[in-house]
Amino acid sequence: MIVFEDAFEQVLQHTLDLGDETVVLSKSTGRILSEDIKADRDFPPFNRSTKDGIVIAFSAIEKRITRFKIEGILSAGMPQQSLSTDTNCFEIMTGAVLPEQADTIVMYEQTEIKDGWATITSTPNKGQNIHRQGSDEQKGAILLKKGTSITAAVIGVLASVGKKEVSVKKLPKICVVSTGNELVEIHQIPLPHQIRKSNSLSLAAALEKIKITPKPLHIADDKDVIEKELEKAFLEFDVMMLSGGVSKGKFDFIPDALANLGIKKIFHRVAQRPGKPFWFGIQKEQQKVVFSFPGNPVSTFANYHVYFLPWLKKSLGQEVEKQSVILGEAIQPHPSLTLFVQVSTQWQQGKLIAKTIKGNGSGDLVSLALADGFIRVPQGNDKIVQGAVFEYTEAS
Amino acid sequence: MIVFEDAFEQVLQHTLDLGDETVVLSKSTGRILSEDIKADRDFPPFNRSTKDGIVIAFSAIEKRITRFKIEGILSAGMPQQSLSTDTNCFEIMTGAVLPEQADTIVMYEQTEIKDGWATITSTPNKGQNIHRQGSDEQKGAILLKKGTSITAAVIGVLASVGKKEVSVKKLPKICVVSTGNELVEIHQIPLPHQIRKSNSLSLAAALEKIKITPKPLHIADDKDVIEKELEKAFLEFDVMMLSGGVSKGKFDFIPDALANLGIKKIFHRVAQRPGKPFWFGIQKEQQKVVFSFPGNPVSTFANYHVYFLPWLKKSLGQEVEKQSVILGEAIQPHPSLTLFVQVSTQWQQGKLIAKTIKGNGSGDLVSLALADGFIRVPQGNDKIVQGAVFEYTEAS
Repeated sequence: MIVFEDAFEQVLQHTLDLGDETVVLSKSTGRILSEDIKADRDFPPFNRSTKDGIVIAFSAIEKRITRFKIEGILSAGMPQQSLSTDTNCFEIMTGAVLPEQADTIVMYEQTEIKDGWATITSTPNKGQNIHRQGSDEQKGAILLKKGTSITAAVIGVLASVGKKEVSVKKLPKICVVSTGNELVEIHQIPLPHQIRKSNSLSLAAALEKIKITPKPLHIADDKDVIEKELEKAFLEFDVMMLSGGVSKGKFDFIPDALANLGIKKIFHRVAQRPGKPFWFGIQKEQQKVVFSFPGNPVSTFANYHVYFLPWLKKSLGQEVEKQSVILGEAIQPHPSLTLFVQVSTQWQQGKLIAKTIKGNGSGDLVSLALADGFIRVPQGNDKIVQGAVFEYTEAS
Repeated sequence: MIVFEDAFEQVLQHTLDLGDETVVLSKSTGRILSEDIKADRDFPPFNRSTKDGIVIAFSAIEKRITRFKIEGILSAGMPQQSLSTDTNCFEIMTGAVLPEQADTIVMYEQTEIKDGWATITSTPNKGQNIHRQGSDEQKGAILLKKGTSITAAVIGVLASVGKKEVSVKKLPKICVVSTGNELVEIHQIPLPHQIRKSNSLSLAAALEKIKITPKPLHIADDKDVIEKELEKAFLEFDVMMLSGGVSKGKFDFIPDALANLGIKKIFHRVAQRPGKPFWFGIQKEQQKVVFSFPGNPVSTFANYHVYFLPWLKKSLGQEVEKQSVILGEAIQPHPSLTLFVQVSTQWQQGKLIAKTIKGNGSGDLVSLALADGFIRVPQGNDKIVQGAVFEYTEAS
């Protein structure tokens, strides 16, 4: 059995680099850019009006001209026009291209318009109300760096430079394996000694949230069947995520089956609660990683968040950030185990305050549904007082 | 022009109730439950072993029996057995059903097993190592309340009670309308006076994140065409989300077109930056709501987060929670406008610290892509010092 800190370190030392792939823009949200995105033109691409009003040549102001003949109306989407003389003006709308020979925009509120003539009622500054070509970004500038997480705002930038397809980090292909002869499908009425599957569905929902659609696979508690089914799955998937079959019971065949398939055990059992019987291993040459979680729901769910999500972030080249919370009550740590305690959280003046949720042990699925996340309570003997700060992992 | 506080209040006073619908479990993540979920049986459904070891009748301990003949091995998924006499025991695995006539489990670590006999090496307590039937939840108990947001953990609960389909709040059907003759599609090479669409793609990405797939619709800046196209769209959609065409320019036809279609203006123009020309209206009888945002990207994005998302939460019967952040630097408010300032955030000891991002005005899409969210800075004259707390909206 190893301590949590070592287990976590080991997991992060065995990331995968799965390479890149191209996806269409509309499917790229939530993915990680694997290319730098450059401006394909200046932004804005032309000198752009920022007001509705009239556009003039400032040379007219220097000649004390205040009344201008209106040559026409310019709106966004019209090609660039040219002002024929500085005694004339155009009406111009926000977003329109500044005409040639003009350089200053006066908003309607500072003009009087009558019978095709505009009179200005206050003296403008040269060049005012113009969003200058290239003032946001110049052609060729890097707008978004490789490694950027694609949010809705990033989609806007990608669209504006014409990226109808974009190169992103590949996500691992994942097989979520459930074991346990007591498990039946959700549409079945379980016999008294049976229960319905829930872990594999929870994991699938959590993975879908990060754009991974896992393959579900249920295997009976039979040593030979387990080995044969896992062997097949390893041909197709990068990551095997198992729940159940890793405790010390006589029917916990998973560790042996994985060993027989050439998966190297990195560790088995971590001094933590819940999730102690966690088994983690790799097959280096074929780039396979195995997260084999204990079968009870809270253990699986906690280990998914505590180990798998940081592993995935690092595999995708992202920084593993640590969120923290302030404890709203005192708590007793365990002398020899790292605890992952379910909490609900609340904002108070820019601080995130956590209160523990009283569950009924690691089998209690319902208390899990009420939790906003987990705090990590390091092992220790002394009661931890209200106001202490803990590392926090938000639940999916 | 109205102040932000009034505009926000007005928006929340015009929510829609769209009713319920049934979706399959795997598609329900992120939705809001519209039914109470009850336990269809006790949880756990039987007296369940929590250890690997042997199971005995405590009456044997009272008779000072310490050595038991092993009748067999019980594992999870086996129907309930019966202990034939209290001089016997079963081996039992975690998750297995407690046999009849037995009531106490001794873990392997406190036994010696040899030649079909088990000897216990320490005296157990009656009833130990059993997760009692119904101790988590009793049959008929409400496990999840109507209004619960369906997370990955909630999916686990729903699966365990056999909800292969679940009743959830309906989401509004949304049409995202872009206007502006300067806009071309992302795969096109824009002429010098044109730009590619970005707002409608950003909005679609943000909506997809909350499980809404909007219909995109582009309309040319032509009064008649706008009216005709909007009229058609109103037949099909609950919410129209427009960007552009609401300023005071001569080609900003949207407010008139909406009025002609019988949409009642609730307000137009809010004392805020960015997003001042925001137009909001409803058609009460036909339950239609119109969010008509200004055309520039930062305005649209800010208004979507500040107005639309709370409106949707309230429409779905959810509480509109307020997140808060602590400002990591001093800031100057505007004397007469509420400001929505783009910030990046960082965790420091359970506190969320925000720093402003220097953008180049409301057209600057790239600075938007760097922001984690917006803070709301109420209007005022005095500089706000570092450490002040602000309402914060996380960006999608």
